[in-house]
Order: sequence, then structure tokens, then C-alpha cells
Amino acid sequence: MFQINENYQQLNESYLFSTISKKISAYAAAHPDAKIIRMGIGDVTLPLSPAVIEALHKSVDEMGAKATFRGYGPEQGYDFLREKIAGTDFQRRGINIAADEIFVSDGAKSDTGNIGDILGEDNSVAITDPVYPVYLDTNIMRIGQGDKIHFLASNAANNFLPEIPSRKIDVVYLCYPNNPTGTVMKKAELKKWVEYAREHESLILFDAAYEAFITESDVPHSIFEIEGAEICAIEFRSFSKNAGFTGLRCSYTVVPKALKAKNGKGEKISLHALWKRRQSTKYNETPYIVQRGAEAVYSPEGQKETKALVAYYMENAKTIRNGLEQKGWTVYGGINAPYIWVQCPAGTGDSWGFFDRLLNECLVVGTPGVGFGKNGEGYFRFSSFNSHENTREAVERIKNWKY
Amino acid sequence: MFQINENYQQLNESYLFSTISKKISAYAAAHPDAKIIRMGIGDVTLPLSPAVIEALHKSVDEMGAKATFRGYGPEQGYDFLREKIAGTDFQRRGINIAADEIFVSDGAKSDTGNIGDILGEDNSVAITDPVYPVYLDTNIMRIGQGDKIHFLASNAANNFLPEIPSRKIDVVYLCYPNNPTGTVMKKAELKKWVEYAREHESLILFDAAYEAFITESDVPHSIFEIEGAEICAIEFRSFSKNAGFTGLRCSYTVVPKALKAKNGKGEKISLHALWKRRQSTKYNETPYIVQRGAEAVYSPEGQKETKALVAYYMENAKTIRNGLEQKGWTVYGGINAPYIWVQCPAGTGDSWGFFDRLLNECLVVGTPGVGFGKNGEGYFRFSSFNSHENTREAVERIKNWKY
Repeated sequence: MFQINENYQQLNESYLFSTISKKISAYAAAHPDAKIIRMGIGDVTLPLSPAVIEALHKSVDEMGAKATFRGYGPEQGYDFLREKIAGTDFQRRGINIAADEIFVSDGAKSDTGNIGDILGEDNSVAITDPVYPVYLDTNIMRIGQGDKIHFLASNAANNFLPEIPSRKIDVVYLCYPNNPTGTVMKKAELKKWVEYAREHESLILFDAAYEAFITESDVPHSIFEIEGAEICAIEFRSFSKNAGFTGLRCSYTVVPKALKAKNGKGEKISLHALWKRRQSTKYNETPYIVQRGAEAVYSPEGQKETKALVAYYMENAKTIRNGLEQKGWTVYGGINAPYIWVQCPAGTGDSWGFFDRLLNECLVVGTPGVGFGKNGEGYFRFSSFNSHENTREAVERIKNWKY
Repeated sequence: MFQINENYQQLNESYLFSTISKKISAYAAAHPDAKIIRMGIGDVTLPLSPAVIEALHKSVDEMGAKATFRGYGPEQGYDFLREKIAGTDFQRRGINIAADEIFVSDGAKSDTGNIGDILGEDNSVAITDPVYPVYLDTNIMRIGQGDKIHFLASNAANNFLPEIPSRKIDVVYLCYPNNPTGTVMKKAELKKWVEYAREHESLILFDAAYEAFITESDVPHSIFEIEGAEICAIEFRSFSKNAGFTGLRCSYTVVPKALKAKNGKGEKISLHALWKRRQSTKYNETPYIVQRGAEAVYSPEGQKETKALVAYYMENAKTIRNGLEQKGWTVYGGINAPYIWVQCPAGTGDSWGFFDRLLNECLVVGTPGVGFGKNGEGYFRFSSFNSHENTREAVERIKNWKY
């Protein structure tokens, strides 16, 4: 009989957010009048900005007229968008990234998941713990559980800055501002990782999906702010959180042309060429209308409007952070990220115990820290993607909670 | 140093259509006034139907208002679309496929490429030759060249119906109506493949992207018209060609719940569950607005309008087929498919030779058959995705061509 990819058998049965979703549905079915406030999944709640909506309408009209209709586009994205990205997100900050080093895609989830396609199966892989589950799951799918995957503990003891491995690791996933902990890696710290990668000829997969939430000046927006990162790193960005594109789907990945690896014969191979080949063969392109929507994010109105969206959520982050600190809880994140990482206070149980009690007793939903890895046990993630009203009410409920 | 996926080293340098594109650019640069008619890549030229445009505008407005905004949707697609697909494309034809067996995605290219993720690396794989290059390239990426990949010759001698292998092959790719040959597999023939797959416990990956172009009644629209296919086949469909979505991006894949494989321990594993896990982990979802556009294809206006698009292209197919037959050329396809497969007439050279002469002497572009596999050598593909005017002019030029 034909065979399946046996690695899938090593995955956990269910994806974290599906489990949460089921628990909420079960609670809601039993309590139809309960006003549940969701601060779990990192999904935005505010509508798309007017500049984006206008660009979408305009490009939809283009698709309805013979003279302006567009069929297949370039698999790496249209130049109009790649140039705006390179100019605004990189060159304006003094970072030397060119438009043709940008690969437009439909989501950082797809790209961080698919990047493994171009990597060898014998690489050792390091993943911080707790972590966005996609890095781990897609590696298990590709190479299975086992001693090739290393977990770098990220916890209060090391100030959420995982220790740099003493031995050589081939591929390292870093996500900063961090999901789920909301913590950051400042420039001096990130520089050490780039030095490590250069010394050991490792590859850093840097997920900067939450870059737009940075408020402090010494927090890098891109790994390419660090000198020499262009020969050891790939960076992932997303329009999901900075511009509310979670339902519209646009992201991009930066693969510098200077990034090379050796093949079996010792020849230098460009990862840019490999990723281009992967995307040309297994992806078509992000819809034209969506790329026009993303382009509008870079217009003066788009910049103003999307910054206002981010500011709105960061006001929530402040409300949560301050409220929970006032309750005497130990709280991390929420300053350069939309996530607040809370140590489950004594008497509330472990992560899932805390989840269940919070749902049952406050009608508030968050994400159990252990769902992001074993070092997340005893922690809990609150997301600031909600309305001011709901966020304030949720914090009030928690403040009044006797546990 | 970290390692790359060495299989990529076994791929051809350049993707077929990129090479064609470069040749056209070079010719156009040298002859700026030349009116080149492109009948190469299978990209549609007519604008989206008014029903689709209206649905896009409406859903864009929803995304701009707080009350109707949608963020993350279900990774498998919204029920409103999955139900329309199951009802119209399957149940209406008496095929027993349920809405939750449909996985909405962004392209048949992505899905036929990514499906390998859930399959084991030791499977033997059969691919017809000539073939859509994505099947071969994505298998090389995954398992490398070598004796696991088998080519099933599809040529005039076997009436473009590849012989059923005498030995067991684990995974078989079939694409009907066929790209590139434009030929079909009638029900009795497809039944033999289903019987083969059931007997050998093989998996058929059935690409029905061109289903909308079928005009003859004994040509199956879906492999699930064949009894028993639900335990041995996955089917890929696309909105690219039937509704002109090449730049909008929507497709779907049918993985029946009855389809199972054995894992290493001999337990029955559902491929539906594996694909769901793959898509939930490595894909977000097709943009909400695009799914609303696809839904509109199934409205009475949408059905009428998209059928008119298909009829428009099929008129071109007839023009090409009749014109080239009148010239005395040997011509296949074009009756149930938008592609016409031509045997390069004596004196015009091989596939690429014919391409170069046709470009230089008629200013007409098509696709060299050999680009689809070695059995395509000596053949040439014309696509009917163009205007009536251009198609007629191209055929006139060819009719007047002295080669």
C-alpha cells in the first residue's frame, strides 16, 4: 500500500487554537447568555483601514475590465509592492535590502512552515520554548521528533532571553518581539546570535511579524539592522498584525542574495535562488488585489491609519498590563508587543487549569502558556486584539476575581 | 555548515515558462514594433465576471466595517463556499462528496505541489509524460530524481492514454482533461485506473483543473464519478480556468473521508485528517473576499457568466483546431480542453526549433511540447486563452506561413 509521511504520527492530535475553540464552544453551548470576552488567539478585531479598502475597490474594478485585468502575476510579488516594502521597511531605516530580495506571500505561517522545504533533513534545529507552535509542528512533519530538535528555554530566570547554545546548531528559529511572551531581544543580544550563526555557519530564521508594535528605540525592527546578518539570516514579516490583514492574507519573506550554503560538493548555493525555485514551483502569487491593498499600507494615509490601529491595540496592552500588575500578578510583555505573558498566580492551577477557571469564573478567554511549549507551563497569554470596552471589562472582571 | 535540501540540485535550472518569457522579451527588445501574439502560457485574458466583481466589492465593504470585518477564517475554507462547491460540482451530478471533504485553497499549483507533504518518501510515483511540470518538479524536490519516479508515455501511438503499469506503483498523477495535450480520458478508461489503484492499494492524484471545458457527455468531470474512487483518490480543482481566477487565486482539493492508508504499525490512517493537519499548520486560508468571489461563481448569474467565458475560449480552440487541420497538420485536443496539441510538421524542427521559427516567422508564441517531458518532443501546445481577434490573426499567419 502507498505510504503516508509517518512523521505526522508524532504530532500532537490537535492544534492549540482548535482545542481552545472547542472549549469555548462547549462553554457557550451550556451557557448561551454568557458574554465571553476573547483574548486568546492573536486575531485583530478592527476593520481594514480606509486607504486599504479604497485600494481594494480600485483593483477589483481593474479586474472587471478587459484593459486592466491581470491574470498570473510574478510568483515573488509585483514590483510595485516589493519596492515599497524595501524602501519603507528597510532602506528608510538604513538597512541594505533590495526589492528583489523580498518574496511576497500569503502569510508568515505559510512561509515559516514552508521554509523547511529548501533545507536538508540532517540539520539540527533550535526552537525557543515557549514558541509559536508552527515552527515545531512543521519541523516534526519534516524530520520527526527526536534528537535533532533542541529546545531553548525562555523563562523568567533568563529574562526570556534563551541562552546561546554551547554546541553548534544548524538552524535557529527566533521570533522577536516574541510570540507568546511579548518580550523583546535588544540589539546587543541579537548581535550575539548573529555572531554565533556566523561562527558556526548556522542559519537564523527570524520571525519579525510583530515588528510594528515596537515602541522602544533600542529594539531592532529587523535582524538586518545587525551587521553581517545578511549572510546568516532569513526574515519573515506579516501584514496581519500591523495592518489587520489576518483575513486578507499578505506577508513577505526577506532572503538576502548574500545568503549562501554549501551543497554536498562544497559549492556555494544561494538560498535566494532555492526559495525562488520553491515559490515559483509550489506557489502562484498573492492575489493582485491583496497586493494592491498591501501597497496602500505604505501610502501616507495608509501609514497614518495603520499606525492608529497598532496604537489602539497597544492602549489595550497597557490596560491589561497595568490592571494585572495592580492585582499583584507577575506580568511580562505588552510594551513592544500586543501580548501580555502572565505567571499564573498561586492557587489558580497550571496553564490549562487557569484557562478553565478564567473561562468559567470570569468568562474571559486567553491562551494557556503550556500550549506553546513545556516552559510555558504555569504561564498564560493575553492578547490585546480586542475593543477598548471589552478589554477594560475583562480586566475589571479579573480584578474582582476571588480565586 | 547548515545543509540545503540537496534534491533541489537535481532540478532543471529554469522553469519552462520563465525560459519562454525570456525568449519573448529578447525578441521584443530586438523588434520593438513586432505584434507578438501569445498562445503560450495557460493564462486567461477575459476580465472577471460581473457577479464575481460585485461579490468582491460587497465583501471588501464588509472588511472595512467593524460589525462585518472578518479576521482569521477556517483554514479549510468557509462553509458558505464549501457547501456551494459540494452541492453544485458534485451532489448535483449524483456524486457523493460532502462539504467537509472540500479544502479551499489558493491554487491547484500549491495543492498538487504540497500534497507530497503527507506522503511517505519511499512511495513509487508515476507521472504521465508529457505532463504539467509541477508534479515532476515537486517530486524531485521531495524525493529526488531516481528510480522511484516512473514516466508513463502519453503519445499518438497510445492515443494519449498511458498504459496501465504492469507492476505496482504507489502514487499516480493523472490530469484530465489533460494539460498539455488537451486530450481526455473517458469513463471506461478512468474506471480501469480506479480498479488498478484499488487492486494495488495505490493513490491517484487526479487533477481536474480543466473540467469546465468538457463538452462531450462520456467524459468524467470528476474521478468520483467512478464507483470506489473515494477510497483511492484525491481530486484537485481550480477556479483559475473556469472563472478566470488566475490573478485572484482560488482552488479546492477533495479528500474523501473514506480514503485511508496504513501507517507503519498497520493502523488505518485518514488522509483527510492528515491533509487537514497540514493545511491547519502550514496554511491560513484563502482570503475571505476571494472566497466570496468564488461563491458568486455558483450564483445563477455567476454560472451563466462563467460558462460564457469558457465558451468564448472554446470558440478559439475551434478556430485553432480547424485552422491547423486545414493546413494539413496533425492536431489533438481542443474539444474538451482549451489546449491544442500539434505535431510539429516535417521541416520545422523539434519543439524548441518550432518555437523559435514560429516566434521569428509568424510572431506567434506557443509552448514547446518537450518542455512538458521527453515524450512531448516534436509536439507543440497552443492555448486558446486569447481574444477571438488575436486567435484568428495567429491562425491566419500560420496558414500563410511557408516553412
